[in-house]
Amino acid sequence: MDSIRFKNDRLWYLDQTQLPLKEKWYVADTVDEVYEAIVRLKIRGAPLIGVFCAYGVYIAMKKTASNCRRKDVFLKQTYKIIDHLKTSRPTAVNLFWALDRIKNAVAQNGHRTIGEITRAVLNEAKTIHAQDRQLCARIGEYGMRVIRRGDSILTHCNAGCLATAGEGTALSVIFAAARIYGKKNIHVFVDETRPLLQGARLTAWELTKKQIPATLITDNMAGFLMQQGKIDKIVVGADRIAANGDVANKIGTYSVAVLARHHRIPFYVAAPFSTFDLKKKTGKRIPIEQRNSQEVTMILGKLPIAPKTVPAYNPAFDVTPHELITAIITDRGIIKPPYKQNIKKRFDKVT
Amino acid sequence: MDSIRFKNDRLWYLDQTQLPLKEKWYVADTVDEVYEAIVRLKIRGAPLIGVFCAYGVYIAMKKTASNCRRKDVFLKQTYKIIDHLKTSRPTAVNLFWALDRIKNAVAQNGHRTIGEITRAVLNEAKTIHAQDRQLCARIGEYGMRVIRRGDSILTHCNAGCLATAGEGTALSVIFAAARIYGKKNIHVFVDETRPLLQGARLTAWELTKKQIPATLITDNMAGFLMQQGKIDKIVVGADRIAANGDVANKIGTYSVAVLARHHRIPFYVAAPFSTFDLKKKTGKRIPIEQRNSQEVTMILGKLPIAPKTVPAYNPAFDVTPHELITAIITDRGIIKPPYKQNIKKRFDKVT
Repeated sequence: MDSIRFKNDRLWYLDQTQLPLKEKWYVADTVDEVYEAIVRLKIRGAPLIGVFCAYGVYIAMKKTASNCRRKDVFLKQTYKIIDHLKTSRPTAVNLFWALDRIKNAVAQNGHRTIGEITRAVLNEAKTIHAQDRQLCARIGEYGMRVIRRGDSILTHCNAGCLATAGEGTALSVIFAAARIYGKKNIHVFVDETRPLLQGARLTAWELTKKQIPATLITDNMAGFLMQQGKIDKIVVGADRIAANGDVANKIGTYSVAVLARHHRIPFYVAAPFSTFDLKKKTGKRIPIEQRNSQEVTMILGKLPIAPKTVPAYNPAFDVTPHELITAIITDRGIIKPPYKQNIKKRFDKVT
Repeated sequence: MDSIRFKNDRLWYLDQTQLPLKEKWYVADTVDEVYEAIVRLKIRGAPLIGVFCAYGVYIAMKKTASNCRRKDVFLKQTYKIIDHLKTSRPTAVNLFWALDRIKNAVAQNGHRTIGEITRAVLNEAKTIHAQDRQLCARIGEYGMRVIRRGDSILTHCNAGCLATAGEGTALSVIFAAARIYGKKNIHVFVDETRPLLQGARLTAWELTKKQIPATLITDNMAGFLMQQGKIDKIVVGADRIAANGDVANKIGTYSVAVLARHHRIPFYVAAPFSTFDLKKKTGKRIPIEQRNSQEVTMILGKLPIAPKTVPAYNPAFDVTPHELITAIITDRGIIKPPYKQNIKKRFDKVT
């Protein structure tokens, strides 16, 4: 179940804004189309926009190369495009991480020909793409260990195939558990995730496609389910994780974490290492994207639900402090508190 | 700002399902229309459905009287209608309270003529209607005392003019505070209240009409606002209050109460005494209405937002345990913990 494809030198993507009603694939042939697809959330999910933007730089370089023979101009233009793509969305750090890898690939191949640099970038994009798929699989393998046969798991937003190049982060854990225990022995409660309904539209769609038992709820039902003892565990994804373990994720995640703490239900975050931003000491420093208030007052751009003159607040993310997180499931293993020390250890091991 | 009117011997109601886009008034001329209006939530709000049903019995009696001369048949039919109307919705107790008052009026006038009994019921309905308006005003007067100049108040669902025959319960407190401090010195955050969006459609509409500064949010943003220190107080209505102070109210209320506790924000419930059901020792015994799952998967019956095959859960209410409630604002004063004793005291005083 892919959500982007690189095929015959072209970048294809499944338009997620049309799901679940229509499954339509489009080609992004210019950097503007790539940028637009991200801003309009046709492509979303922290790891996925990283992969998509990496290809986006290649798409742009190919076009630049076709009418530019001066390498200095070509390189300047390429860096400009990379910087431009970084402005598409502010919160998910994987975007910057992927674009920095692409930037490095350009720099390291700066002495070569325009054609060679372009190919090097394509190779790096393909590597990021393939690695993301592997990271998802590893998150699933590690995360599965916290799930037990018969668990009911609540998830928020979409952290699945549609948010990554692989099986997802939070959903990868669920898919892996379903493979081990059998689909009948796992149940997923899906927060619809207002305003843009990624839970109802995307997570419910993925789970239905994979025939994993799922029940859709409105976000405000989660507490009631916990009160009734119907939720055993919570697993969500992440858009950025600070050095102290604070997690920025889709708006509403923080409320779920507080509710989980009140009911003593384990609250897990699943994310690849590209989601960590050690430059941010705490979550307070993570920039939170504010989106158009019409996303709240007009559902999916189609159905007005409020008086025209009423203002609406629309932060796209919130920050869950590390104290509320039971463990962070990564592609390098499960990280438990104390987070600051344990995150540092994992990074030191590799770098 | 009325939501029902009894005029020229006919029962008019504002169809709340069409708000805020259309303000359309209809007449309920038969008991079936009254029943249907309640089931389809054209008329909703615990106190309001009580008043509406009281008139509903009169509407039905008038029709019965027109082709029935035997009083025993007439009375039997009237009691049948009262019992039927009680089945329209299960959670709000004001409905049963109002219908029991009507039943008493019938019984007390049982020795009179059919015409006299019918008129007695109309008088009782009008009394319930007028009293509800007064109760709202008193709730506002008492409740205002917990609000300070400059407060930002979060409310959930709609407990305003559209939920009562007067200025509401939770919103009556806000309206009263706005009169004292000036509209500019009060700010209301409105939970949109999925699935049926009573906050976005009705509360935002009322506040906009009365020019009280309001900001609409999705339900899952409430925790984030509290974390940022943007909420000073929470005031909500109630559909039924048990003898120990547990409160049944619109789904999502419980989550807000847990979030409030985590952030040490005062959480108030505003309701008239007709909302108390002392026969229920705790909230666990209050029946919770389960509604059609399509209300979750298809927004306002118009916009599908989820795969067709995914099941959805749709409890219309939840129960907030009394431990999470700072005080209950009633028409007879503010009740503080210990609730069991203090609720009993207030009832003993009057009865």
